Amino acid sequence: MLIRPKAGILDPQGIAVERALPALGFSGVSHVHVGRLVELELDDPSQLEEMCRTLLANPLIEDYEIVRDLPA
Amino acid sequence: MLIRPKAGILDPQGIAVERALPALGFSGVSHVHVGRLVELELDDPSQLEEMCRTLLANPLIEDYEIVRDLPA
Repeated sequence: MLIRPKAGILDPQGIAVERALPALGFSGVSHVHVGRLVELELDDPSQLEEMCRTLLANPLIEDYEIVRDLPA
Repeated sequence: MLIRPKAGILDPQGIAVERALPALGFSGVSHVHVGRLVELELDDPSQLEEMCRTLLANPLIEDYEIVRDLPA
Protein backbone atom coordinates (compact mmCIF):
# COMPACT_ATOMS: atom_id res chain seq x y z
CA MET A 1 0.00 0.00 0.00
CA LEU A 2 1.05 3.57 -0.56
CA ILE A 3 1.01 5.92 2.40
CA ARG A 4 1.22 9.63 1.76
CA PRO A 5 1.21 12.69 3.97
CA LYS A 6 -2.25 14.26 3.82
CA ALA A 7 -2.67 17.38 1.75
CA GLY A 8 -2.20 20.36 4.02
CA ILE A 9 -0.11 18.46 6.54
CA LEU A 10 3.51 19.50 6.81
CA ASP A 11 5.75 17.14 4.87
CA PRO A 12 9.26 17.93 6.11
CA GLN A 13 10.92 15.22 4.05
CA GLY A 14 9.27 16.54 0.91
CA ILE A 15 10.40 20.07 1.71
CA ALA A 16 13.94 18.88 2.37
CA VAL A 17 14.10 17.06 -0.96
CA GLU A 18 12.61 19.99 -2.83
CA ARG A 19 15.28 22.27 -1.39
CA ALA A 20 18.16 19.87 -1.87
CA LEU A 21 17.56 19.07 -5.54
CA PRO A 22 18.33 22.54 -6.94
CA ALA A 23 21.54 22.59 -4.89
CA LEU A 24 22.55 19.39 -6.69
CA GLY A 25 21.91 20.95 -10.07
CA PHE A 26 18.42 19.63 -10.73
CA SER A 27 15.88 22.22 -11.70
CA GLY A 28 12.19 22.32 -12.48
CA VAL A 29 11.16 20.08 -9.60
CA SER A 30 8.00 20.81 -7.67
CA HIS A 31 5.33 19.19 -5.54
CA VAL A 32 7.69 16.77 -3.85
CA HIS A 33 6.03 14.43 -1.38
CA VAL A 34 7.70 11.67 0.53
CA GLY A 35 5.58 8.85 1.85
CA ARG A 36 5.95 5.19 2.59
CA LEU A 37 5.54 2.03 0.63
CA VAL A 38 4.49 -1.09 2.51
CA GLU A 39 4.38 -4.37 0.64
CA LEU A 40 3.16 -7.62 2.07
CA GLU A 41 1.60 -10.92 1.22
CA LEU A 42 -1.64 -11.74 2.90
CA ASP A 43 -3.90 -14.78 3.04
CA ASP A 44 -7.06 -12.77 3.69
CA PRO A 45 -7.11 -9.49 1.76
CA SER A 46 -10.24 -8.32 3.58
CA GLN A 47 -8.05 -7.58 6.59
CA LEU A 48 -5.95 -5.09 4.71
CA GLU A 49 -8.06 -2.01 5.27
CA GLU A 50 -8.11 -2.46 9.03
CA MET A 51 -4.41 -3.29 9.06
CA CYS A 52 -3.67 0.03 7.42
CA ARG A 53 -5.75 1.94 9.91
CA THR A 54 -4.45 0.26 13.04
CA LEU A 55 -0.77 -0.18 12.37
CA LEU A 56 0.59 0.96 9.09
CA ALA A 57 -0.67 4.46 8.54
CA ASN A 58 -1.43 7.25 10.96
CA PRO A 59 -4.90 8.26 9.79
CA LEU A 60 -4.65 11.66 11.46
CA ILE A 61 -1.87 12.80 9.19
CA GLU A 62 -1.62 10.25 6.41
CA ASP A 63 -3.75 8.93 3.62
CA TYR A 64 -3.30 5.39 2.44
CA GLU A 65 -4.10 3.71 -0.78
CA ILE A 66 -4.27 -0.01 -1.30
CA VAL A 67 -2.80 -1.20 -4.56
CA ARG A 68 -2.97 -4.85 -5.53
CA ASP A 69 -0.14 -6.33 -7.51
CA LEU A 70 1.94 -3.20 -7.69
CA PRO A 71 4.52 -3.39 -10.49
CA ALA A 72 7.22 -5.71 -9.08
CA MET B 1 9.23 6.57 -7.54
CA LEU B 2 9.18 3.53 -5.33
CA ILE B 3 12.21 2.81 -3.19
CA ARG B 4 12.56 -0.60 -1.61
CA PRO B 5 15.17 -2.24 0.57
CA LYS B 6 17.26 -4.55 -1.59
CA ALA B 7 16.61 -8.26 -1.33
CA GLY B 8 19.01 -9.70 1.23
CA ILE B 9 19.45 -6.38 3.04
CA LEU B 10 18.04 -6.21 6.54
CA ASP B 11 14.66 -4.47 6.56
CA PRO B 12 14.05 -3.68 10.23
CA GLN B 13 10.79 -1.84 9.59
CA GLY B 14 9.46 -4.79 7.64
CA ILE B 15 10.43 -7.17 10.42
CA ALA B 16 8.82 -4.94 13.03
CA VAL B 17 5.56 -4.81 11.08
CA GLU B 18 5.58 -8.54 10.46
CA ARG B 19 5.96 -9.17 14.18
CA ALA B 20 3.43 -6.58 15.28
CA LEU B 21 0.56 -7.66 13.04
CA PRO B 22 -0.08 -11.06 14.67
CA ALA B 23 -0.07 -9.35 18.08
CA LEU B 24 -2.91 -7.15 16.81
CA GLY B 25 -4.90 -10.16 15.68
CA PHE B 26 -3.95 -10.23 12.03
CA SER B 27 -2.73 -13.55 10.74
CA GLY B 28 -1.43 -14.94 7.49
CA VAL B 29 0.85 -12.01 6.78
CA SER B 30 4.26 -12.58 5.25
CA HIS B 31 6.97 -10.95 3.18
CA VAL B 32 6.46 -7.50 4.66
CA HIS B 33 8.73 -4.85 3.21
CA VAL B 34 8.70 -1.20 4.07
CA GLY B 35 10.14 1.24 1.61
CA ARG B 36 9.59 4.80 0.56
CA LEU B 37 7.40 6.56 -1.91
CA VAL B 38 8.65 9.79 -3.44
CA GLU B 39 6.33 11.74 -5.69
CA LEU B 40 7.29 14.84 -7.57
CA GLU B 41 6.54 16.90 -10.62
CA LEU B 42 9.39 17.50 -12.97
CA ASP B 43 9.88 19.57 -16.11
CA ASP B 44 12.58 17.33 -17.54
CA PRO B 45 11.92 13.62 -16.86
CA SER B 46 15.33 12.63 -18.19
CA GLN B 47 16.83 13.90 -14.93
CA LEU B 48 14.85 11.47 -12.85
CA GLU B 49 17.20 8.52 -13.00
CA GLU B 50 20.17 10.56 -11.80
CA MET B 51 18.06 12.26 -9.16
CA CYS B 52 17.19 8.87 -7.70
CA ARG B 53 20.79 7.79 -7.60
CA THR B 54 22.22 10.95 -6.11
CA LEU B 55 19.66 12.00 -3.57
CA LEU B 56 16.58 9.92 -3.19
CA ALA B 57 17.69 6.34 -2.87
CA ASN B 58 20.80 4.83 -1.33
CA PRO B 59 21.93 2.54 -4.14
CA LEU B 60 24.03 0.43 -1.79
CA ILE B 61 21.04 -0.83 0.11
CA GLU B 62 17.98 0.19 -1.87
CA ASP B 63 16.48 -0.47 -5.25
CA TYR B 64 14.37 2.15 -6.91
CA GLU B 65 11.74 1.97 -9.54
CA ILE B 66 10.42 4.89 -11.51
CA VAL B 67 6.69 4.85 -12.09
CA ARG B 68 5.04 7.50 -14.21
CA ASP B 69 1.55 8.60 -13.30
CA LEU B 70 1.13 6.37 -10.30
CA PRO B 71 -2.55 5.85 -9.38
CA ALA B 72 -3.93 9.08 -7.80
